[in-house]
Amino acid sequence: MTDFFKGISPIKFEGADSTNPLAYRHYNKDELVAGKRMEDHIRPAIAYWHTFAWEGGDPFGGRTFDRPWYDKGMEGARIKADVAFEMFDLLDAPFFCFHDADIAPEGATLAESNRNVREIGEIFARKMQSGRTRLLWGTANLFSNRRYMSGAATNPDPDVFAYAAGQVKNVLELTHELGGDNYVLWGGREGYETLLNTKIGQEQDQMARFIHLVIEHAEKIGFKGQVLIEPKPQEPSKHQYDYDVATVYGFLKRYDLDTKVKCNIEVGHAFLAGHSFEHELAVAASLGMLGSVDANRNDLQSGWDTDQFPNSVPETTLAFYQILKNGGLGKGGFNFDAKVRRQSIDPADLLYGHIGGLDVLARSLKAAAALIADGTYDKAVDARYAGWQGADAKAILGGKVSLADLAARVEKDNINPQPRSGQQEYLENLINRFV
Amino acid sequence: MTDFFKGISPIKFEGADSTNPLAYRHYNKDELVAGKRMEDHIRPAIAYWHTFAWEGGDPFGGRTFDRPWYDKGMEGARIKADVAFEMFDLLDAPFFCFHDADIAPEGATLAESNRNVREIGEIFARKMQSGRTRLLWGTANLFSNRRYMSGAATNPDPDVFAYAAGQVKNVLELTHELGGDNYVLWGGREGYETLLNTKIGQEQDQMARFIHLVIEHAEKIGFKGQVLIEPKPQEPSKHQYDYDVATVYGFLKRYDLDTKVKCNIEVGHAFLAGHSFEHELAVAASLGMLGSVDANRNDLQSGWDTDQFPNSVPETTLAFYQILKNGGLGKGGFNFDAKVRRQSIDPADLLYGHIGGLDVLARSLKAAAALIADGTYDKAVDARYAGWQGADAKAILGGKVSLADLAARVEKDNINPQPRSGQQEYLENLINRFV
Amino acid sequence: MTDFFKGISPIKFEGADSTNPLAYRHYNKDELVAGKRMEDHIRPAIAYWHTFAWEGGDPFGGRTFDRPWYDKGMEGARIKADVAFEMFDLLDAPFFCFHDADIAPEGATLAESNRNVREIGEIFARKMQSGRTRLLWGTANLFSNRRYMSGAATNPDPDVFAYAAGQVKNVLELTHELGGDNYVLWGGREGYETLLNTKIGQEQDQMARFIHLVIEHAEKIGFKGQVLIEPKPQEPSKHQYDYDVATVYGFLKRYDLDTKVKCNIEVGHAFLAGHSFEHELAVAASLGMLGSVDANRNDLQSGWDTDQFPNSVPETTLAFYQILKNGGLGKGGFNFDAKVRRQSIDPADLLYGHIGGLDVLARSLKAAAALIADGTYDKAVDARYAGWQGADAKAILGGKVSLADLAARVEKDNINPQPRSGQQEYLENLINRFV
Amino acid sequence: MTDFFKGISPIKFEGADSTNPLAYRHYNKDELVAGKRMEDHIRPAIAYWHTFAWEGGDPFGGRTFDRPWYDKGMEGARIKADVAFEMFDLLDAPFFCFHDADIAPEGATLAESNRNVREIGEIFARKMQSGRTRLLWGTANLFSNRRYMSGAATNPDPDVFAYAAGQVKNVLELTHELGGDNYVLWGGREGYETLLNTKIGQEQDQMARFIHLVIEHAEKIGFKGQVLIEPKPQEPSKHQYDYDVATVYGFLKRYDLDTKVKCNIEVGHAFLAGHSFEHELAVAASLGMLGSVDANRNDLQSGWDTDQFPNSVPETTLAFYQILKNGGLGKGGFNFDAKVRRQSIDPADLLYGHIGGLDVLARSLKAAAALIADGTYDKAVDARYAGWQGADAKAILGGKVSLADLAARVEKDNINPQPRSGQQEYLENLINRFV
Repeated sequence: MTDFFKGISPIKFEGADSTNPLAYRHYNKDELVAGKRMEDHIRPAIAYWHTFAWEGGDPFGGRTFDRPWYDKGMEGARIKADVAFEMFDLLDAPFFCFHDADIAPEGATLAESNRNVREIGEIFARKMQSGRTRLLWGTANLFSNRRYMSGAATNPDPDVFAYAAGQVKNVLELTHELGGDNYVLWGGREGYETLLNTKIGQEQDQMARFIHLVIEHAEKIGFKGQVLIEPKPQEPSKHQYDYDVATVYGFLKRYDLDTKVKCNIEVGHAFLAGHSFEHELAVAASLGMLGSVDANRNDLQSGWDTDQFPNSVPETTLAFYQILKNGGLGKGGFNFDAKVRRQSIDPADLLYGHIGGLDVLARSLKAAAALIADGTYDKAVDARYAGWQGADAKAILGGKVSLADLAARVEKDNINPQPRSGQQEYLENLINRFV
Repeated sequence: MTDFFKGISPIKFEGADSTNPLAYRHYNKDELVAGKRMEDHIRPAIAYWHTFAWEGGDPFGGRTFDRPWYDKGMEGARIKADVAFEMFDLLDAPFFCFHDADIAPEGATLAESNRNVREIGEIFARKMQSGRTRLLWGTANLFSNRRYMSGAATNPDPDVFAYAAGQVKNVLELTHELGGDNYVLWGGREGYETLLNTKIGQEQDQMARFIHLVIEHAEKIGFKGQVLIEPKPQEPSKHQYDYDVATVYGFLKRYDLDTKVKCNIEVGHAFLAGHSFEHELAVAASLGMLGSVDANRNDLQSGWDTDQFPNSVPETTLAFYQILKNGGLGKGGFNFDAKVRRQSIDPADLLYGHIGGLDVLARSLKAAAALIADGTYDKAVDARYAGWQGADAKAILGGKVSLADLAARVEKDNINPQPRSGQQEYLENLINRFV
Repeated sequence: MTDFFKGISPIKFEGADSTNPLAYRHYNKDELVAGKRMEDHIRPAIAYWHTFAWEGGDPFGGRTFDRPWYDKGMEGARIKADVAFEMFDLLDAPFFCFHDADIAPEGATLAESNRNVREIGEIFARKMQSGRTRLLWGTANLFSNRRYMSGAATNPDPDVFAYAAGQVKNVLELTHELGGDNYVLWGGREGYETLLNTKIGQEQDQMARFIHLVIEHAEKIGFKGQVLIEPKPQEPSKHQYDYDVATVYGFLKRYDLDTKVKCNIEVGHAFLAGHSFEHELAVAASLGMLGSVDANRNDLQSGWDTDQFPNSVPETTLAFYQILKNGGLGKGGFNFDAKVRRQSIDPADLLYGHIGGLDVLARSLKAAAALIADGTYDKAVDARYAGWQGADAKAILGGKVSLADLAARVEKDNINPQPRSGQQEYLENLINRFV
Repeated sequence: MTDFFKGISPIKFEGADSTNPLAYRHYNKDELVAGKRMEDHIRPAIAYWHTFAWEGGDPFGGRTFDRPWYDKGMEGARIKADVAFEMFDLLDAPFFCFHDADIAPEGATLAESNRNVREIGEIFARKMQSGRTRLLWGTANLFSNRRYMSGAATNPDPDVFAYAAGQVKNVLELTHELGGDNYVLWGGREGYETLLNTKIGQEQDQMARFIHLVIEHAEKIGFKGQVLIEPKPQEPSKHQYDYDVATVYGFLKRYDLDTKVKCNIEVGHAFLAGHSFEHELAVAASLGMLGSVDANRNDLQSGWDTDQFPNSVPETTLAFYQILKNGGLGKGGFNFDAKVRRQSIDPADLLYGHIGGLDVLARSLKAAAALIADGTYDKAVDARYAGWQGADAKAILGGKVSLADLAARVEKDNINPQPRSGQQEYLENLINRFV
């Protein structure tokens, strides 16, 4: 045991009346909600990068945190792994997620980097055997090193494409060996800083080829998990090709990848793309692309990715409604892609962030389940579309009626449709009964 | 002749040194640019709605303009048509565009409304025979009347879908009879005001069916023009399904419409979707979806659609570069989807707007053509991607190499790619030599 | 009695378990919160414009509502007044607010317009005698008529300034006679559409003079209420001079008006200016400028003023915290500057909007009061600044120490300040205990 | 001589036809514009931080540049100074600007840090004696070190305030000794990350006291330059107190600082605050607060501070118009607060950025001067306000007329003001004649 969280006891569920800041007030993993354990609904995961690798820097200042594993190479990586699993235990976390670069230092060559990652991977494997925390997903960091400054799969230099392939092969295999449920592709540099030096068509072809290679390799090694793309509109690039769910769908469809890849949807990325989180979830669900979720929130006034912990029950309830109506997240889960603020420099702050986030998810899950169980809301929405259940309407959608038929019918029957209230305020009030 | 533009002579090209505000300084329609007449490159069109139907209102105030055709029903519609063609002549405009609701007042029934539209359509036909102005595109207004408040094709009420079909049939046929080169679908209400009362999947199915009906009818009547969707992310709706080019592509691809429909791309809509105009053009070109352009600009500080006339040569030059590299707009053109400000209440203001816009387009076209003719810029971009011309790189894109092959090669050859400058500043300076 | 709300009974408090959509679930006017009646904390008001004058139009479509008072001149104005007071009774509303143009039609001259306003004002006076609803504030509409298209007080034409003065004099006097607690100035056209035709200095001088005239007249007639400016950054203008609270403060200070005018702060205007609502409240409180509140919310994805009803208890709780810490709103209140969506066309929708909004305010008030009563939060914030209570620190703020003194002290004592956690996540969790 | 710019000759003016990317095409320092040398109008400065201290990192990746002075402590600082002055010579730059932290590494104590800064300051002094480059302004970096994570002057810990004082004293004195024309205060951390842990009133009092201390010390040491605040709305903080020019004015006015401090206005900061650059210049000019300019541009689609080189002549011309009408920048100048992109890793890229920026400034200066010399534009704007030159109108502004007087006059004379065209399109076209 390290002494990083010295004096802090495991976080327990104490109920809504607890005033203990180091206790769950709502997250009660074994509580049944709509017939399923809360933990099995949420499948919460801790993100290695924000929690253990981020140092508190921002564009105008460097490291504010002071961690015993900084600047110590592989020895630091081992200390970091120890603290990570101590924290997983403290929080009783069922899942975690990582990039290769989060867990081990870069070596002088790809081979050495990959060996470093594998060495820590072995430590993970041992710790996972003795503990309960599993791997929600793994991923490769193809954006921090300067070699990726102009993209990984979309780099103008094919050697960078190859290097990225070598990195992904390693992490995909490690993810598979650690029993990970998903492998995620986030294309932070797959896009452009300026259109002036960019061939969009060429780069998209490269990206599609890369994903095909990943899918083929996943099949070859017998990986049964989901492969997920994580949409984000921009940052660090000015424009990223995986802008939002609808854009990713078009890309996958174009390159015959739409049946093989789903989306990992992040709250803050939805916001930066001009959408609500529930919108992105609803779009993904309508396209059969809802894979997993990166739980966080974005500051409403900041134009960059702030990755804060979720803290609004009303907002998150709308998200859970979409997820529950879609039958849940399946192999996906809620990865806390969230970091404590750079002024939150104490070890306990890491716990406060996750505790608060989990409590918000728990309240939201229960609210959404109650909303669905009540049924009033769903009935109101169904009633709005009831007209499309008629035989004539079905014939239209079924392709049995032409434009001219419809025009003739309107003129003949002098159809003059009367608008009906959209009832937005009524529905908002109704939902507020449950949050 | 009406006296609306009394005392104003036809607008002529007078050259860059002219200080006459009612003359073209750069737009010289017969001047050859890259071997083609300037007019044939730009194919400029005047939008009936902003120029003749808009009354100067905004959300906080009503009509500011005072036009002799207001509040006069069909008689007003005829006066309006007279003034419109007088203005087309004054500006020597080769094209115009219209919605049905712009040109004729709504009747008590769909049949009467359509008859009104046809009556003015006949006036247009006569005027077009004696003049040179042609129809770039027609479209149906499926958003202003309260019956469309919850959408047209995506309305929860199938009768509204049918009504919209009746309207589109009429305008599509009129567009065809007037020799229009394109028919445009803009779905200002095809989206939602609140996700709370909306079934996205159901509504998208409806929209796809509607477009299929339009395509089938166009084929039936022998319409040879392009059918275009005009992307816009929001406004009037909170969210519109035709968010941007990439989203429209995914939708069309999903419903087997991608070979039948292209995009009409608007500058201000690109901006509201978080993109540059040239980005949307480049994406459309890479997808074979570049159909036509709605020329305007958005105020950089306003969060709504301001539809101002284009006035930045540097920005518009980047757009023309994309268009020229794509082989031009074909049957498309530059429709001025732009309105004079609500304080610009004089008839001459309508002319200033279009003259200034055309001069900006003319300067930009010449700048882009010169940039391409010079060749330095294109060579710099090609050089950046030269690596992908090698045999090994082509094998990657050709699907001949696996992830494992690539990984092995990197480790074996100890490949360590070195970044190369993206040269953004150099390229920006280079382009500034031409604007 | 009109039959507008036919069949709807007065809205009563039924408690949190009620499923009646036409009942208050949380707003219980006589319930004591922190020793004061809930109604006396909130002082809710109904806005005449959104509720009775707005017709459901937006920039892409006209009227969707169908009200018995439309298009009927003064007769319609009387019906409208009847329905308004029926609704005030139904909702048991203690306050309302109006512009002159909301309540009576414009006449052929200023004199006639003012007489129309006064005639309806007399109806109001009679109804107010027999009912309990009072006037929170009155104001003049200086933005809808085309004469104000280039501003009212800031118009380049001094005759418009004079006309506006004539309108304000009338409404200010009516507000006084009706016992209004406040008079509001909202400068929707006091700004510019383009800086190109604007002299900012000249216009600001005009605006300051106008406000001085209003203040002097208010004093002359014995008006004891507050005079309030309502900040908004833009819309309808591209830029409005009353951008936000800090900007208004600078303007008032510059022209010696800062002791005579306070702010009416609107949620959605704060958002459009790039601020949170609680930020604007906190700034106003720190400057002694917190006068009243326009309660609403803005859609998070729309770039224009959406004026929706508040529906987020967590967000509104932060606002109430600022208000309660400031000692409450005094003569101010919560005016629902909110409108039902244009698809919410039924009379009942008007009630749903206000009921939901009031319930959110009630829950938020109670949450904020509980947060303050608990004390943990305030103590945590006080502790953060405790260092400034020391004698040395007070000497610094008291101006007793020079830059050189401080520099010398740091070097001599080798002061090396250590950062302390900002505890953002801890505080967020703490607050979530109360919402 | 270092070999950093090996093989690159001094940048010369070669005229608009030059295709040499390492030549000025428009910036011709001795060319007279409106009777003054171009260099004396622009007073361009090179920013030490972006050019020599920034390493190419962003929130998702580290250093991309490879400079011989990195990671070498004071020895590196000396190499950096050598290269900096070589670059000043290559560009023939008349000015530069720096933060203390840019030029020398932090020491173990404030005393050591300050000594490091002074040691490099002496090198600067020697180089400035033999060269022509002078100091436009100096400033202290009070935001990068973790001690400042919660602010400098506004820190909850008074020791941090003191530490900041010690740093500013040193740089202010060095700036004075090096003959700097200005001293700049940029409060990147003077604001908050969350309002939840923040006392705005307390922090503003601290900030005002700090500025008073700086002013007093500047007077004590005989510094004759301007003291400038640089407004920015946010980033790194969520909210910064120096939001924009109007906010800074209110703050200065409140604390009796408005006659002692002016503004250093940055293009990108104006954009992030929701303003155009020319707006901020016009506001500052109207308040007598226009001190200096940070020349750059922000990406239009990115929500963070991108600090790119200016490249739009039309936009920058509007800025120069405001500056020239204000009588020029006096002791201020155009500091290129701009950095090459992180992919622009070659030494020549640093030159391309500055060359392109200077050429844009030169073209814009000439365009604005020509616009003013022509006079048509100014006359049009004057004509718009001509009504306020009448005796009656002057009496209004002079406070000789009451609200009641004005109201009576409107009713008596039946004044009915008619709107006049705002002529926005005409004015835009007019300006486009000069760019």
